[in-house]
Amino acid sequence: MLRPRSQGRRDAPGHRRPPLRCERRRRAATGGHDPAGDFSARWKPRDAALPAASGERVHRIELHAVDAMVEIAAGVSQEMWTFGGTAPGPVLRGRVGDTFEVTLVNDGDMGHGIDFHAGELSPDRPMRTIEPGERLVYRFTAERAGAWLYHCSSAPMLQHMGNGMYGAVVIDPPDLAPVDQEYLLVSSALYYGAPGSDPQVAAMKAGTPDAWAFNGIATQYAKAPLTARAGQRVRLWVVAAGPSDGIAFHVVGAVFDTVYKEGAYLLTPGSPGGSQVLDLAPAQGGFVETRFAEAGHYAFIDHDMRHAEAGERGVLEVK
Amino acid sequence: MLRPRSQGRRDAPGHRRPPLRCERRRRAATGGHDPAGDFSARWKPRDAALPAASGERVHRIELHAVDAMVEIAAGVSQEMWTFGGTAPGPVLRGRVGDTFEVTLVNDGDMGHGIDFHAGELSPDRPMRTIEPGERLVYRFTAERAGAWLYHCSSAPMLQHMGNGMYGAVVIDPPDLAPVDQEYLLVSSALYYGAPGSDPQVAAMKAGTPDAWAFNGIATQYAKAPLTARAGQRVRLWVVAAGPSDGIAFHVVGAVFDTVYKEGAYLLTPGSPGGSQVLDLAPAQGGFVETRFAEAGHYAFIDHDMRHAEAGERGVLEVK
Amino acid sequence: MLRPRSQGRRDAPGHRRPPLRCERRRRAATGGHDPAGDFSARWKPRDAALPAASGERVHRIELHAVDAMVEIAAGVSQEMWTFGGTAPGPVLRGRVGDTFEVTLVNDGDMGHGIDFHAGELSPDRPMRTIEPGERLVYRFTAERAGAWLYHCSSAPMLQHMGNGMYGAVVIDPPDLAPVDQEYLLVSSALYYGAPGSDPQVAAMKAGTPDAWAFNGIATQYAKAPLTARAGQRVRLWVVAAGPSDGIAFHVVGAVFDTVYKEGAYLLTPGSPGGSQVLDLAPAQGGFVETRFAEAGHYAFIDHDMRHAEAGERGVLEVK
Repeated sequence: MLRPRSQGRRDAPGHRRPPLRCERRRRAATGGHDPAGDFSARWKPRDAALPAASGERVHRIELHAVDAMVEIAAGVSQEMWTFGGTAPGPVLRGRVGDTFEVTLVNDGDMGHGIDFHAGELSPDRPMRTIEPGERLVYRFTAERAGAWLYHCSSAPMLQHMGNGMYGAVVIDPPDLAPVDQEYLLVSSALYYGAPGSDPQVAAMKAGTPDAWAFNGIATQYAKAPLTARAGQRVRLWVVAAGPSDGIAFHVVGAVFDTVYKEGAYLLTPGSPGGSQVLDLAPAQGGFVETRFAEAGHYAFIDHDMRHAEAGERGVLEVK
Repeated sequence: MLRPRSQGRRDAPGHRRPPLRCERRRRAATGGHDPAGDFSARWKPRDAALPAASGERVHRIELHAVDAMVEIAAGVSQEMWTFGGTAPGPVLRGRVGDTFEVTLVNDGDMGHGIDFHAGELSPDRPMRTIEPGERLVYRFTAERAGAWLYHCSSAPMLQHMGNGMYGAVVIDPPDLAPVDQEYLLVSSALYYGAPGSDPQVAAMKAGTPDAWAFNGIATQYAKAPLTARAGQRVRLWVVAAGPSDGIAFHVVGAVFDTVYKEGAYLLTPGSPGGSQVLDLAPAQGGFVETRFAEAGHYAFIDHDMRHAEAGERGVLEVK
Repeated sequence: MLRPRSQGRRDAPGHRRPPLRCERRRRAATGGHDPAGDFSARWKPRDAALPAASGERVHRIELHAVDAMVEIAAGVSQEMWTFGGTAPGPVLRGRVGDTFEVTLVNDGDMGHGIDFHAGELSPDRPMRTIEPGERLVYRFTAERAGAWLYHCSSAPMLQHMGNGMYGAVVIDPPDLAPVDQEYLLVSSALYYGAPGSDPQVAAMKAGTPDAWAFNGIATQYAKAPLTARAGQRVRLWVVAAGPSDGIAFHVVGAVFDTVYKEGAYLLTPGSPGGSQVLDLAPAQGGFVETRFAEAGHYAFIDHDMRHAEAGERGVLEVK
């Protein structure tokens, strides 16, 4: 059902919600993304580059739970529930032992909360649901390295995550080798339609997404490729935000000589073996590395071809 | 189709089977578990605590294949095909080199068999189907450590497993460190309806369960939490019984410093990395460890949120 | 839609395509394989034995993209798009550092290309789509060991792979121990119906295959078992060709003491642990090893029981 909208919405007295601009009807469970479509003129891709950790030992972040209209696929604009106005929310990065002090502010119109996989703590207070207008401080220390998911902690999480409330925390392993480029890609499924509406919720429960995406927007890096230069070593961090699907991450034309998954190296360059796919279950994370010897257009995909063809694909352009 | 019921049921001459008490109709493929419902007064959760291995080097067990009415979700009672009256069946635990001598007695009304993944042997005789009233002895030595599945070996296994005929065998690795608490959780999907009926079988073939569960009963440990005390180290064994789904096992608020999967350690406490999810494919097993520093309610879930919301969730209460 | 057939088909002027012999209608998403059926008299299983690498350091192969009628399940003949007339295409095997010079010839009636995961190179030219009658040379050096997928590189890959255009490349790890028998099994889903037809494409997009198979043909090794002798050590290579499903590979009655996945050993015989399932995501590969002490019939399956019962099962007969 559509969630009742609060009449007394704190930040917008007299505010009237605009009609949803998602004109496309939910398609039957046949994928649904129109590969021939194009993004609107004002659309911008999300920057996938992952900056180095800041060096601070205490990271202070204010994160606003807020609804936002997002063009989640070419020609498909939809209200999303977000952390900070984008889905995924901002990436946090630090080192083992760093503390994160996150102030969550609920600027939405329903209850929200937050759950950081990167830190160990009792969920009872920091992960509680806060109402519109409320705020809480969530403080955790990241004692272990990994590529961690964060997401809304309010029930039903299938909807809160499926409508955009997720993001990634990267805690560098102490021995992390230097590379020339680092990108971070969060994989997720997209369910078209009014968030929380009966048909959208039914699709989530049935596990029949309309599209799949890297960093929240189907095919965005096919439209706006990531870049590298010939000879560069590139590290690709991947976090699977589900809400119900993992990913079989592959880069066409590349072989991974380094694979790090869930806090452990599965492959390092000194090994004679190579890897073609990083497999992540829902809520897992890791990274792969490869060196691009030649210029060209290297597609990266979920090698579940249903997902790739319904939006979970992009291009890394090597010049 | 409904399987024909033997007229000459050995242990119950003149027995008339009571009408199935499963009043809920199968729901369309939309999850289906009613989270607002409650268990009946007589319902009891399955004890998930895993006792230490007995120290015997030969384990003798009699296991009865028997139909049983089970409240598999709040308000949903259903006939299950079981080993020993519960689904999952009893847990067996031993050390590398132990021998298990299992006498299977078929007290059901159709053919059944058994298949222990923990032991190597020719399947032809020990895994054969025996008819109602028959028995067989299945003797195996567990030469290698792991968290192993056992299940009915009779075709169609999708139905025999999907209706409850599975369990776990734990063979401790030789170097298994002491912990304060050990639990064992078997994950599985639940298909509502008369076992073997056309709509239930169709749902199994389509891969559209009605619910998912730990130790056979949806949401049971949300209703009756597992417990630990602050400061304790807890080991959680997980075995994925399918019949078609794996699991992305996660504990909210916890980080795993130890991950053991399919006979190998992927992470040990000395590593700087941590893990948020143990990913198991159908019929895989392993364990994770974490230390709960603070009191609180730590949910544990399949982080495939469809599964979590349709029953595969519980709470570990730390006092 | 059905792809338009070129009037000027190069190799067959005046050729009239015979009517499709696939009489079976696509079944609803309920599996669909009839286990009671039998293969036609002229049907032959694909040889799963994997010969040793030839010792050549440069492997020259000519590979023809060609349509072929294949009995993909007992009584189900269907046009497949293939590399070399079979699906999967031929297996290539070599050592680290070997070069493969593959000449792809398009004898089909639509555009095709090829993508070898085993080699690193810019995709732009070698993976381009060539039209019927054209050819290209794809040259790569396999710098790293693994069990690699190759597949058609033309869009939509879901269809090109789902209709048969895939195969495996095995690059031996340098330390590969001798065994008595080696087999290679490629797992895939089967979608019945005219290739590229609306209902078949819809089923692919919905992820509802009709059957699953080892080496392209459902239940073929149940009909024509693989063989070994008691006491032999057997290595089973597995590559998951999808297009959207992975595999939970299991051998009934066996325990794996060696597991190699995506270029890395997860388990070696000296470990006290054992494995029951090799889990591969789509486009992953690896191998397992076990020793069969006793004579008997050891079934091997995808332990996703939906897949096993809908064709992804076989028998290894130990004499």
